Amino acid sequence: MSIAILGGTGPQGRGLALRFARAGTPVVLGSRDGGRAQGIADELNAQLEGAATISGEPLREAVAAADEMVILAVPYSAHDATLEAIRDLLPGKILIDIVVPLDDGDPKRVDMPAAGSATEAAQALLGEEVPVVGALHNVSAAILNQLDHSINCDVLVCGNDLAAKEKVIELIRQLGVEAYNAGPAVNARCIEAITPILIRLNISKKVPFTHAGIRIWAPDA
Amino acid sequence: MSIAILGGTGPQGRGLALRFARAGTPVVLGSRDGGRAQGIADELNAQLEGAATISGEPLREAVAAADEMVILAVPYSAHDATLEAIRDLLPGKILIDIVVPLDDGDPKRVDMPAAGSATEAAQALLGEEVPVVGALHNVSAAILNQLDHSINCDVLVCGNDLAAKEKVIELIRQLGVEAYNAGPAVNARCIEAITPILIRLNISKKVPFTHAGIRIWAPDA
Repeated sequence: MSIAILGGTGPQGRGLALRFARAGTPVVLGSRDGGRAQGIADELNAQLEGAATISGEPLREAVAAADEMVILAVPYSAHDATLEAIRDLLPGKILIDIVVPLDDGDPKRVDMPAAGSATEAAQALLGEEVPVVGALHNVSAAILNQLDHSINCDVLVCGNDLAAKEKVIELIRQLGVEAYNAGPAVNARCIEAITPILIRLNISKKVPFTHAGIRIWAPDA
Repeated sequence: MSIAILGGTGPQGRGLALRFARAGTPVVLGSRDGGRAQGIADELNAQLEGAATISGEPLREAVAAADEMVILAVPYSAHDATLEAIRDLLPGKILIDIVVPLDDGDPKRVDMPAAGSATEAAQALLGEEVPVVGALHNVSAAILNQLDHSINCDVLVCGNDLAAKEKVIELIRQLGVEAYNAGPAVNARCIEAITPILIRLNISKKVPFTHAGIRIWAPDA
């Protein structure tokens, strides 16, 4: 089952492509520049030595090549325009929105869209026919790209379609992380906003770490 | 240095009183019914055997007895009215707001005030003279009240006054937990909203735990 990663040439997209390909899921990187996507795919395949299942395509071809799930990993400034460019190809597929609406001038702040969050904005733009699932917002791109590191956080998954969320949770568990159903799309207002709090901690001089994630923790787990 | 806990007769307030008193900080429980506050204080002191430093007072007397910090732990429905009743006593003190605006009919949802969050609403109501610090929203009351359990989460602390946040972080570290500066008061929109996500997980049949918290996690910590 191939997945597409749009914005797959950015750090988050590249890291996810490496991780999913290594776990056995073929990945099609999508970019406005299909040649650049193919070039990045070649680089990533070289890193994986053998498990060479990453390819690169222009955006629409990447979406068409995905069997069921399309990950949106573009910068927030390209969020809506990218969805507009592919929306007619999405019915029958699940959109996984990992975009965090960071403030343009200050990545320690969110600048939420009028819809409340990126996930809700995507759902409003695509209509009820396409289930949108918010996930993977809080995973450090640096960690994703260091394949010798295990991923240091749990993943909170939200959206209004339970069956779609369950498929996404199953996909994410391929990465060796725990993924939790964190409720409806409205909860993306919280989950997306965790990322700038982590960025703030990472750049603080008062903590001994630089790539924080969050974990759900319980005494009886 | 005595602290006051308003709404100290509720489960969160009682648990915090036990934990702070055991750590050596005298606690004054404040309640609209001062007699009831004293009764709960007696019960808690009996649990602590010896470290009997919890007392109970009517709301205004409790605030007056606090040296520097007042914890607001009332139900959200009493948030603004409680602040109105004590606001003239607060200048010179720090208000620690731990209230989560849970939806009246569904504790798996937030019902945020127009100000954006409880912490921001408190800051707007009290004015800039009184620093408001949001904290301790995501700590399970059940865990707090089980003194043989260590507290299973980190604490995210937010507010617009850095010096006040640093004092609150120092206070919270008495409980044996890590507390982090999570940025300005606006971040309470995220931090308060984590609680209903944890409540949702706790009541889900798909997880093996009932008292989840969150931890900040990093590979290089």
